[in-house]
Amino acid sequence: MIIMKAEATEKEIANVVKEIKKYGLKADVSRGEFRTVIGLVGDERKIPFSHFAVFPGVKEAMMVETPYKLISKEYSKRFAEESECRIIQVGNISIGGDEPVFIAGPCAVENKKQLFKIAEGIKKAGAHILRGGIFKPRSSVHSFQGLGANGREEAEEALSWLHEAGKKFEMPVITEVRGEMQVDLIAGYVDILQIGARNMYDQDLLGSVARKNKPVLLKRHFGAGIEEFLSFAEYIAAEGNKDIILCERGIIPVGKGRSYTRYTFDLAAIPAIQKETYLPILADPSHATGRRDLIFNTSCAAIAAGAMGLMIETHYKPAEALVDGQQMITPDELKDVIQTCQRIHRMIVPSNNKHKSA
Amino acid sequence: MIIMKAEATEKEIANVVKEIKKYGLKADVSRGEFRTVIGLVGDERKIPFSHFAVFPGVKEAMMVETPYKLISKEYSKRFAEESECRIIQVGNISIGGDEPVFIAGPCAVENKKQLFKIAEGIKKAGAHILRGGIFKPRSSVHSFQGLGANGREEAEEALSWLHEAGKKFEMPVITEVRGEMQVDLIAGYVDILQIGARNMYDQDLLGSVARKNKPVLLKRHFGAGIEEFLSFAEYIAAEGNKDIILCERGIIPVGKGRSYTRYTFDLAAIPAIQKETYLPILADPSHATGRRDLIFNTSCAAIAAGAMGLMIETHYKPAEALVDGQQMITPDELKDVIQTCQRIHRMIVPSNNKHKSA
Amino acid sequence: MIIMKAEATEKEIANVVKEIKKYGLKADVSRGEFRTVIGLVGDERKIPFSHFAVFPGVKEAMMVETPYKLISKEYSKRFAEESECRIIQVGNISIGGDEPVFIAGPCAVENKKQLFKIAEGIKKAGAHILRGGIFKPRSSVHSFQGLGANGREEAEEALSWLHEAGKKFEMPVITEVRGEMQVDLIAGYVDILQIGARNMYDQDLLGSVARKNKPVLLKRHFGAGIEEFLSFAEYIAAEGNKDIILCERGIIPVGKGRSYTRYTFDLAAIPAIQKETYLPILADPSHATGRRDLIFNTSCAAIAAGAMGLMIETHYKPAEALVDGQQMITPDELKDVIQTCQRIHRMIVPSNNKHKSA
Amino acid sequence: MIIMKAEATEKEIANVVKEIKKYGLKADVSRGEFRTVIGLVGDERKIPFSHFAVFPGVKEAMMVETPYKLISKEYSKRFAEESECRIIQVGNISIGGDEPVFIAGPCAVENKKQLFKIAEGIKKAGAHILRGGIFKPRSSVHSFQGLGANGREEAEEALSWLHEAGKKFEMPVITEVRGEMQVDLIAGYVDILQIGARNMYDQDLLGSVARKNKPVLLKRHFGAGIEEFLSFAEYIAAEGNKDIILCERGIIPVGKGRSYTRYTFDLAAIPAIQKETYLPILADPSHATGRRDLIFNTSCAAIAAGAMGLMIETHYKPAEALVDGQQMITPDELKDVIQTCQRIHRMIVPSNNKHKSA
Repeated sequence: MIIMKAEATEKEIANVVKEIKKYGLKADVSRGEFRTVIGLVGDERKIPFSHFAVFPGVKEAMMVETPYKLISKEYSKRFAEESECRIIQVGNISIGGDEPVFIAGPCAVENKKQLFKIAEGIKKAGAHILRGGIFKPRSSVHSFQGLGANGREEAEEALSWLHEAGKKFEMPVITEVRGEMQVDLIAGYVDILQIGARNMYDQDLLGSVARKNKPVLLKRHFGAGIEEFLSFAEYIAAEGNKDIILCERGIIPVGKGRSYTRYTFDLAAIPAIQKETYLPILADPSHATGRRDLIFNTSCAAIAAGAMGLMIETHYKPAEALVDGQQMITPDELKDVIQTCQRIHRMIVPSNNKHKSA
Repeated sequence: MIIMKAEATEKEIANVVKEIKKYGLKADVSRGEFRTVIGLVGDERKIPFSHFAVFPGVKEAMMVETPYKLISKEYSKRFAEESECRIIQVGNISIGGDEPVFIAGPCAVENKKQLFKIAEGIKKAGAHILRGGIFKPRSSVHSFQGLGANGREEAEEALSWLHEAGKKFEMPVITEVRGEMQVDLIAGYVDILQIGARNMYDQDLLGSVARKNKPVLLKRHFGAGIEEFLSFAEYIAAEGNKDIILCERGIIPVGKGRSYTRYTFDLAAIPAIQKETYLPILADPSHATGRRDLIFNTSCAAIAAGAMGLMIETHYKPAEALVDGQQMITPDELKDVIQTCQRIHRMIVPSNNKHKSA
Repeated sequence: MIIMKAEATEKEIANVVKEIKKYGLKADVSRGEFRTVIGLVGDERKIPFSHFAVFPGVKEAMMVETPYKLISKEYSKRFAEESECRIIQVGNISIGGDEPVFIAGPCAVENKKQLFKIAEGIKKAGAHILRGGIFKPRSSVHSFQGLGANGREEAEEALSWLHEAGKKFEMPVITEVRGEMQVDLIAGYVDILQIGARNMYDQDLLGSVARKNKPVLLKRHFGAGIEEFLSFAEYIAAEGNKDIILCERGIIPVGKGRSYTRYTFDLAAIPAIQKETYLPILADPSHATGRRDLIFNTSCAAIAAGAMGLMIETHYKPAEALVDGQQMITPDELKDVIQTCQRIHRMIVPSNNKHKSA
Repeated sequence: MIIMKAEATEKEIANVVKEIKKYGLKADVSRGEFRTVIGLVGDERKIPFSHFAVFPGVKEAMMVETPYKLISKEYSKRFAEESECRIIQVGNISIGGDEPVFIAGPCAVENKKQLFKIAEGIKKAGAHILRGGIFKPRSSVHSFQGLGANGREEAEEALSWLHEAGKKFEMPVITEVRGEMQVDLIAGYVDILQIGARNMYDQDLLGSVARKNKPVLLKRHFGAGIEEFLSFAEYIAAEGNKDIILCERGIIPVGKGRSYTRYTFDLAAIPAIQKETYLPILADPSHATGRRDLIFNTSCAAIAAGAMGLMIETHYKPAEALVDGQQMITPDELKDVIQTCQRIHRMIVPSNNKHKSA
């Protein structure tokens, strides 16, 4: 849609109309009392909107359609391409199905023993998928960067532990891919490829990962609006891979003084995103809050908000962890979280469905 | 705490120490490998920190203590002034007690009939307290400003309806006080005085309202960090009134593109605030999301996060409301929200207590 | 403009059209390939947009016009009501004219001697208007709240010093009005009434102050977008008072870790606002940065950005100030700032005009 | 620094002290009236602070030192490693020296003719370095992604044009590296490697680029605080490459409604960063504002704020550009910007130096 300035001349209006036609769209000119608005009939995505903003007499040029189409619930309803909610199958686990899915494990894999001990613990606690960081994104170059930083051999060894632990405890495994150079290596060992929040905008990485034809878990960048988040998920879908699991993990806190949570956990984004896309959405209370004493409540809240699962960092002894101990809970605590969340989920579903249809 | 620059001289350090003593505190000088840090022993609030920032050789001057003390759980534990959680009694309703409290009613009172019809509806739905806006804060001077804008007489009439509806349907009533000029008038008709988000920083209003010795519901400003929010609640407590009900109602959205929710509902702030203060905290999903189709999920999420109640805008026919129809639900929908929330609350409490004690 | 969902039925479209007509506007229905957009012909401000968002089949309801009209450059050009830039005359000082205007003085008035000494200093430094805080908005109830907090008598005495200092050193004076209760009192002593950032949203205060028919300086709230800022300036204009001086003073910092400036000084907002409104805009580097060592550079930057003046906190001995010493500069430093800014202004004007006409 | 809870026991304090010693640091215990604070003597970066936050009795664990050390002015002053401001030499251009440096060119390289025509234009306008985007980061997968997206051959051809244009018009050249896969290829053709805002957090890319031993221009992420920005520059320095050129390009806008500028141009960050690091800092008004009609004023403002140069997108016919036409200016307009900025720079320097030494 192109909004003209109040003082725009007829010639300027005609000029814009002519330009729209060049892109194969039709122009619908609506003359208001004060200003003229030109609607675009056709596929708006073909139009470089910023281009029109330079034309004389133009006040604003904006998209009416959403910038994502392939993953949009509204678009796919129309074209009957997708059901209301896509179920992503990983081994015998269904993400987006009737039961919430719990991903757990250490922030960083430290050694084989640590990983196996935690894997055993979370399996008993009721978790479904094992996570473990090998390439760690860190704010400071002087912090521990994960075993992946010690060279390919050590990275591969850590990946093989993850793979082996998954086999042993019968859980699919997931780890974060931090850069394109790691995609091939990691894809050989895990069931789900994770794009971390810091890499959400990395379109090359999104493409590379998508082409592995494995499910991709995409975390929302802490500075990204919901529409932006979905626009980058579209980069994965554009490669023909629609097995995309979205994950809300907190956005930049607003306001002055101590913030008390590491990020702002945007839980209302969960049902809002569910109205927009058929892709399943999970939540990560560990990174969102950065505080183990807030995990229980915020986990329950995320499930109540409609999240189809959670990713929770777990360690048998958080105080001994090399990374992010302050936000990890123990397998025992995890068990309580999972059981309460499952109860809340069962309670929410019938009303939720009733409200959805409204 | 005063952090000195690496290149600070001994004379500069001595100078800061001398100044600290002027304020009746002791200075604890800690000489690190790289820089010197000066701790303050005594009541830090007596020190104007900004003042120290001007001294030569000073890099940073910061408070170690929280700026709120009267409402702090940690301080009152120490001095045994308050229990873990303050219960605020309004008529026969306990806010902060064993059961969550539901405040409902129209965004704006439009006429007596509308108010009574809604009051009846929400009472049947299980709500405990009746709300109704008479003085409306609006973003545009060209929008409906509430009946309070039509002069004192009409304001008083609307207030009397609210009072009467409360009596008839046996619910305490609450309305927003938008400025000091309205405090006396409103306090004559309602049981709880509400300070809206836009007025959170208005220290004069906070003082005036506090002195009425009625419970005060204080909403968090959409640009306020948690620490700031609590610092302004301290303005009310400083008047000797600790019957303060906090309310999270959403903060400014971050990121570009469509945000899909009116504000970002900061639900993790709820348990975070509960660790800091003994004051009860509620949540307002109507203003936080601005969307009636998100009320159910976000209400459940707020209760799961630990909110001690909710404030939900309600109208029998949202499409006919003069203000904010898009965020109001019907009494029937409210009933479902209340019942599901009550079930979630009962489920959360035992685990919650276990986690709290951890 | 009403954007319909892709699946909206003809009946739903007709329903919206019917409702638009009820408000006295015409509806312009534009059927796109994918969805239907309904334009509104007439004064959009009459429409409660939130109202339409509830209608079945509606995806989005948004204003195409800006919410401010009275202060809009575009609107007034059309109706020939205002020139390109309004000049506000205060005594013999023109704000918005050919020369930038400098407002200076202490953050808080502490006593008569302090005020007069500073007034003398800034006059010699080349400042045009004297500021001095008497009612101070503070983040903590435990901090010094200004002499105004000591009761009406002391407030009035401090105001009389300000008035007297203005007379003696031949400068108009300005102070902040923090609440409606203070309007009458303050208006009796000062030439310009200031609304601080924290009160920007206080529509009652804006109205009360506007009705005094004195120039009003309105600071942007630190959480307000530019459009919002202008919407609240419209509250003043709606009372028939267009002598409004806008002031950018920094917005909430984004991002984690130390921010190094107290707020984010939004200097690009200055030329952006000048394209929207004929009202003059100033900038306040003291509050925006909170650091005296950044005042020189950010003052120069604000003038280069097109600000028509600056408000700078000044003290002969910042380290002795009761409030905000860390952000005040001395009269000597002020002189250098003013002279450099005047040179920059002269340099910017010819090119600026050339660019404006482009 | 570790801040203990008010109710922390002696045993808990002893436990923390013991743990600190494990990391080879000394603990300085300061017992305040209300709580105990434990200072760390030694290199704080060795301590995983999050780790301490898990210990019983700990309220807060925070770094007193900045997380960047190699690029810190304060640290290098102490160790006499660096002068006040590092000058980075690229061909015969000095970045960070006595004169501001202007980088200009098209947002995206479209074809050889377009690039050469623009290169010629900006050279005449007085620019020093030629920019041209080949791998374009874009918000939508459906937008033009730069010639780099058409495969290696076409990418290499576009890079060779850039190289050739640089030779012909005697200007060093710069382009953005969007991912690790492109580093070797691009480094063969350009003089400065640019890391875009979206990749600021990509530590692998930062490392790869740093190891090319060419100057690196690092843009601030739009969600990054200043401290974070500098922490990621430290990733480059940690590879032994200190030829880092910082660039402010706007952060996420705060507040509701239309924002009028694409990002918030954080100009006060420029002098604030100059106090922290000896690295030179530039500014990019094109991306910060997204509006060609704001380039002149914001360019002047950035130079007045102390920027050592600017990066400005330029096109002989902005309306014909494939990408971001709305933010590009013509070579003629650029000339005026450069000349005015040079004059402002000369004016600012003497006072600036005087203020710096204060």
